[in-house]
Amino acid sequence: MRGLWVQDGQVELRTDLPVPEPPAGWARIKVDRAGICGTDLQIVSGYAGFRGVLGHEFVGRVESGSPDWAGRRVVGKINVGCGSCPECRAQGPEHCAERRVLGIRGLDGAFADFLVLPESNLYAVPTTISDSAATFVEPLAAAIRVREQLGDGGGPVLVVGAGRLGQLIARALAAGGREPTVVCRHAEQAARLEPFGIRVIGEPPEHGFEAVVDCTGTASGLRAAVQATRPRGTLIVKSSLIDPPRIDMQHVVVNEIRIQGSRCGAFEPALDMLAREQIRVDDLVTRTMSLDDGREALREAARSANLKIQIAP
Amino acid sequence: MRGLWVQDGQVELRTDLPVPEPPAGWARIKVDRAGICGTDLQIVSGYAGFRGVLGHEFVGRVESGSPDWAGRRVVGKINVGCGSCPECRAQGPEHCAERRVLGIRGLDGAFADFLVLPESNLYAVPTTISDSAATFVEPLAAAIRVREQLGDGGGPVLVVGAGRLGQLIARALAAGGREPTVVCRHAEQAARLEPFGIRVIGEPPEHGFEAVVDCTGTASGLRAAVQATRPRGTLIVKSSLIDPPRIDMQHVVVNEIRIQGSRCGAFEPALDMLAREQIRVDDLVTRTMSLDDGREALREAARSANLKIQIAP
Repeated sequence: MRGLWVQDGQVELRTDLPVPEPPAGWARIKVDRAGICGTDLQIVSGYAGFRGVLGHEFVGRVESGSPDWAGRRVVGKINVGCGSCPECRAQGPEHCAERRVLGIRGLDGAFADFLVLPESNLYAVPTTISDSAATFVEPLAAAIRVREQLGDGGGPVLVVGAGRLGQLIARALAAGGREPTVVCRHAEQAARLEPFGIRVIGEPPEHGFEAVVDCTGTASGLRAAVQATRPRGTLIVKSSLIDPPRIDMQHVVVNEIRIQGSRCGAFEPALDMLAREQIRVDDLVTRTMSLDDGREALREAARSANLKIQIAP
Repeated sequence: MRGLWVQDGQVELRTDLPVPEPPAGWARIKVDRAGICGTDLQIVSGYAGFRGVLGHEFVGRVESGSPDWAGRRVVGKINVGCGSCPECRAQGPEHCAERRVLGIRGLDGAFADFLVLPESNLYAVPTTISDSAATFVEPLAAAIRVREQLGDGGGPVLVVGAGRLGQLIARALAAGGREPTVVCRHAEQAARLEPFGIRVIGEPPEHGFEAVVDCTGTASGLRAAVQATRPRGTLIVKSSLIDPPRIDMQHVVVNEIRIQGSRCGAFEPALDMLAREQIRVDDLVTRTMSLDDGREALREAARSANLKIQIAP
C-alpha cells in the first residue's frame, strides 16, 4: 500500500508498504480522509524522533475487524497504552509511559491507504457528519479540552494565534458561550473568524485577560500570551515547542498565574457538536489533495494562508 | 533614625533617615525583629529596581497609631493597594497594579528603627509567640498558601530546595499531613528537616511526583522541578527568577502539567499555627545581628549554611 513515510526529517511517499494486519481486538481501517496538523509539520522537523507513516487526524471505514465494527465509518482516538500500568488503569492511555500514538510515536499513521487501531479506540460517525468534518473530530476534541480546562467560570477568553488550532478553539469557545477575542496577524485567518461574530485584534490588549489560550506554536507567541495573562489568571498552552523557550517566571510568580499544558480531549463531545451543527469546520479546509501529492500537501500546510489541508488517499 | 538603604544595587546603613510620619489610618511601628529573605538578596542584586529601606518580615510595637492599636505588638501584611481599583475591591491589594510593597516597591521597609503601615494591614501577635517566631509569620503565610494551592487531594509532595522557604514549606506541608519529600543537597539543611520525620533525598526521583513545589531560586532547580512533575501533575513555583529561564514546554504540554505561580498568603492561619505550636521555626534562625551590622547580615544570609538571619535593630 501507499504511505507518507517520515524518517530522520525526510518524507517520502512509499508504495511498497505491507497492508497492516490488525492484532486481536484491533481493526484495519481504510482511510477516506486525513488532516494535516501542526504536530505533523513538527515531526517532519525532527520532533519526537518518529519513524513511520505520518498522520493522526482521519475518518475511514473498518475493513477488517469484529462483527460489531466491520463496515462502519469511524474516527479513532490516537493513544494506545499498555493497559496495565497505574496510569492506564486510573486515567486511560494518554499518559502511559509506554504508549504508542498514531502517526506520532511507535504506530504507523493515517497518511496511508490503511491503518490499524484497537477497536476500543474507535467511534462510529453519524451519517450527517461529512468526511471533511469528521476529520476534525480529533483536533476539535483537543479544542473542547481547552474549554474544559479553563473551568466553568464563564467570561471572556483571549486566544493568541488563529491558525488551524486557534480557529477551532475560538469557535469551540464561542459555541460554549465564552466570548473569545482572537489575536491574529493574518487577514486570511481573521476573515475566517469574523463570520461567527468572533472579535479579532492585532495585538494582545495592555491589561490582559483572566483567561488566555496560547496556540501560536512559537516562543514569541507564547511569551506574548504569558504577558497577556492577568494576575491570578489562567493560561492554557497548546504550543509544544521543541526548543525550550524562555518564560518570564517573575511575571508568573508575582502575579500568581496558572499555566496549564493541554493535549488531547474526549471524542464524544466533539462528535456531538458536529452532529448538532453547533460548530462549523468545513470552511477551514483550504485544499484537499491526493496521497500521491502528500509531500506537496505538507509544504502547503506550512503556509499561513492555508489552514487545514486534507488528504483524500 | 537608622535604616538599611538600597539603591542601584548598593546597600548602605544610613543614620540620617527621618522617622516616618504615619498618614491617617496608618501606624508607626518600632521594629523589634526583622528577617532576611531571598527576595531581599534579589533586590540587592537589582530585582524590582527598588530604592529605599529594605526588609519586609518583621515584628514590632505600634508606637503611634489609633487607640485600638497603640502599644500593641504586631506583624503586618506587606501589600498596600490603591483601594479603589477593581482588583483591590475584588481580591485585595496583592495584585493592585499601583500597589506599594513594604521594603520591595515604593514603601520603606523593616530593616530600620521604624516603619509605617496601614492599620488595616496589622495583626496583633499573641504573647505566646516569641519575637523570633513572629518574624516568620509573613514567609509562613506564603508557605501555607502553597499548601492551599496544591488543593485538598492529599498525598505526597516533592519539595525541591531546602533553603529558608523550602524548610518552611516542608514543615507546613508535614503539619498539614501532606508527606513532603525534600530534594536537598546541603547536609546542614537536611539536618534541620530530619528531626521532623521529613524524608530528604539528594536528587528528584525518576518517576516524579504528582505534586511538586519549586523553592530553589535557581533556573536549574526550576527545570529539575518541571521534569519531576508527573503527567497531569501540579508544580507550584516560588522561584521568582530575574532572568527568564528556559522551560521545557514540550514536557509541560504533552504531560498536561499545571504550573502555578505563588506569592503571598493569609496571616491568620500562620499566626494560628505558631500559637498552637503546630510548627517549629525558631531553630531556623542561625544568627541574630544588629542593624548596625546590616550589610554583613545580608552577606551572611547569602551563605547556604545559614538559613534565617534575623536583625534585632
